[in-house]
Amino acid sequence: MSVFTLHPRLQADTLFVGDLPLCTVRLMNHRAYPWLILIPRREGVSELHQLNEPDQHQLLVESAQVSKVLEELFQPDKLNVAALGNVVPQFHWHIVARFKGDAAWPGPVWGHEEYSKYAADEKEALILQLQCALFPSKG
Amino acid sequence: MSVFTLHPRLQADTLFVGDLPLCTVRLMNHRAYPWLILIPRREGVSELHQLNEPDQHQLLVESAQVSKVLEELFQPDKLNVAALGNVVPQFHWHIVARFKGDAAWPGPVWGHEEYSKYAADEKEALILQLQCALFPSKG
Repeated sequence: MSVFTLHPRLQADTLFVGDLPLCTVRLMNHRAYPWLILIPRREGVSELHQLNEPDQHQLLVESAQVSKVLEELFQPDKLNVAALGNVVPQFHWHIVARFKGDAAWPGPVWGHEEYSKYAADEKEALILQLQCALFPSKG
Repeated sequence: MSVFTLHPRLQADTLFVGDLPLCTVRLMNHRAYPWLILIPRREGVSELHQLNEPDQHQLLVESAQVSKVLEELFQPDKLNVAALGNVVPQFHWHIVARFKGDAAWPGPVWGHEEYSKYAADEKEALILQLQCALFPSKG
């Protein structure tokens, strides 16, 4: 079994939250929206349909779990879920909590170059909040 | 069982291709990219995780089927799959064939207001091509 290596761009732009059975969960370091990224720990996958069927199913289980946590914590008006990968080929699954009137509403969050990073204390508090909601048994 | 009604905006912006077991498949009437939209024939769903588990699973089966057809017909550099719904709340699943150097590359296809519609003959030929690939038994 090959060792999973995170793409350097994902490493640079996101913060580790925790590991679910299939996916590593990371927080996009951009304070405009609560924005999580799920990366299945599989090598050589760039398209959703390249995951095998059990992995696709598990991705949706974990996507639903993360989606519900975002809804509970932030009460968004809408979730945006997507696999684009035009820039970073390693398969990754965006789940973004969107609010009417947010910085890009109703447009997409992608394609804006500037990221407004979290302050250190803000980041720590948010990651802890997400970890407690996603991994309650560890709390 | 309630009757499924397509959102008027989807009705206006897309063209009927065919029905898979769960989803209606429609072609976005925008010639910049081969862009299909899958709409599960379910009422009252706006988020992916609101579909029940068998429907989520079936959506991915149909998404994979459509993705492979787009890859075979158009050899894109990347597929973009997404459920946004910031404008149209009825759950719908985008599958867009992307090419390096296309009109929005490497940005997202959403958020551009102008749609360049297909010419009548172009539209007919493309829909027929998609129908033959997606529903070969009917060919």
